[in-house]
Amino acid sequence: MIHETNYSIRTFHTDGFGHVNNSRHLELLEEARWQYAESIGLVSKLAERNLGFIIVDLRIRFRIPVFEGEQVKVTTCLKTLGSASGEVEQLMYKNDESKVALKSLFHFVLIDRDSGDSIPIDGGIRELLTGVIEL
Amino acid sequence: MIHETNYSIRTFHTDGFGHVNNSRHLELLEEARWQYAESIGLVSKLAERNLGFIIVDLRIRFRIPVFEGEQVKVTTCLKTLGSASGEVEQLMYKNDESKVALKSLFHFVLIDRDSGDSIPIDGGIRELLTGVIEL
Amino acid sequence: MIHETNYSIRTFHTDGFGHVNNSRHLELLEEARWQYAESIGLVSKLAERNLGFIIVDLRIRFRIPVFEGEQVKVTTCLKTLGSASGEVEQLMYKNDESKVALKSLFHFVLIDRDSGDSIPIDGGIRELLTGVIEL
Amino acid sequence: MIHETNYSIRTFHTDGFGHVNNSRHLELLEEARWQYAESIGLVSKLAERNLGFIIVDLRIRFRIPVFEGEQVKVTTCLKTLGSASGEVEQLMYKNDESKVALKSLFHFVLIDRDSGDSIPIDGGIRELLTGVIEL
Repeated sequence: MIHETNYSIRTFHTDGFGHVNNSRHLELLEEARWQYAESIGLVSKLAERNLGFIIVDLRIRFRIPVFEGEQVKVTTCLKTLGSASGEVEQLMYKNDESKVALKSLFHFVLIDRDSGDSIPIDGGIRELLTGVIEL
Repeated sequence: MIHETNYSIRTFHTDGFGHVNNSRHLELLEEARWQYAESIGLVSKLAERNLGFIIVDLRIRFRIPVFEGEQVKVTTCLKTLGSASGEVEQLMYKNDESKVALKSLFHFVLIDRDSGDSIPIDGGIRELLTGVIEL
Repeated sequence: MIHETNYSIRTFHTDGFGHVNNSRHLELLEEARWQYAESIGLVSKLAERNLGFIIVDLRIRFRIPVFEGEQVKVTTCLKTLGSASGEVEQLMYKNDESKVALKSLFHFVLIDRDSGDSIPIDGGIRELLTGVIEL
Repeated sequence: MIHETNYSIRTFHTDGFGHVNNSRHLELLEEARWQYAESIGLVSKLAERNLGFIIVDLRIRFRIPVFEGEQVKVTTCLKTLGSASGEVEQLMYKNDESKVALKSLFHFVLIDRDSGDSIPIDGGIRELLTGVIEL
């Protein structure tokens, strides 16, 4: 399953170079991951058990800059799932040009939000994620 | 007592208009309030009792825009102190021009960070703040 | 005309106090103003003439904190329109409780984005704004 | 040459998980790169020719979370320099524990800020960077 999130790039999303800065890109990608998680029913499942996914490794390749006024689409999908971790791939496309603006990979682990400890991905959460992996 | 914090304005501090955006200004002002609080020994006093100051009202007047490459100075001072609240005034100056870029007033209350409830400003914290008010 | 923008508050929107910080609130309010501007056809009209609205004064009163997982609604409306400036009022409501989380007023001016100079609000832009004022 | 930048982690640097979020980390790393660039005289050299370095690829490995109240040190150094690009390595250490919190690598290119085009790293800029590479 590949989820899509659309953004209109505003003046405040861009920096003095006129394009979207890398830390802002991370926020757009994070919001897209939340919308993906919500769409598959994951957010409520995590909240029930007070769990959370945190990022332990990330990589972004910026291919072309993104400017104010542009419409972009972020695709989000789960690529791998291990016993306690997994990887989400996200691409950003410019709608008008069908061009890839960036490619990113986020390696995550599941934690207990009280202790902060990493825990196995099991039960209903594993079932849910297994069903949406996009190889 | 008036505290001073200096910043060099970077490309990433500015937005597509070429100037520092209002939400970024709030971050620069917040960091300056923390440096002020640290300089008077307030941060450790708050941590001891798990208390925190939160903003309940803020006002900012932007007089002239701040651009990439500029050096600015933020002055921070406590203007009023009530039983459970107070006001901090912060101005941002451009160093080169001795011009005021913005004037701001933050109304704060003290809260217990566990309960989130507002509590009286008393004991060592009141003593400390009374000593630094700048009328 | 009153425009509505809805947000789901994410973990990354909140700070170490567990609530949405003031600089993040400003970003949520700014995005809501852009969606409002887009909905009335203002964004393209500004782009045609390379104009932009910038904030010269803002005030926010925070009534109740906003937490992770909450659904909020931001209302945006134009309250006053002068020859070269105007005021936008924005409120944030918590959907579940029908409670006002914050009330804000933004005083704006129109600028030429090349020169940075303030210019009169006239022509098609005045016409458009006059039609949507909410007294 | 290895440059060091120190930060006190504030409440507003952390998110609802209680730790510094990845987009905020990118801002702390970016400010550290600017301080490095300033310390070697690079910022003025770039401004003279209206050039800028932009990030085309980044990778961050988060080893341990960073919490409010912690003191951290960011080390920044230039690792490689090609004809039109190079790599900067940045590590973040927790001061109290001498532990590495994150390791990152930023691949950059030089651009002309007017055209946005990538250009060769030559002249005084190459000379300057060649002198500070840390193999």
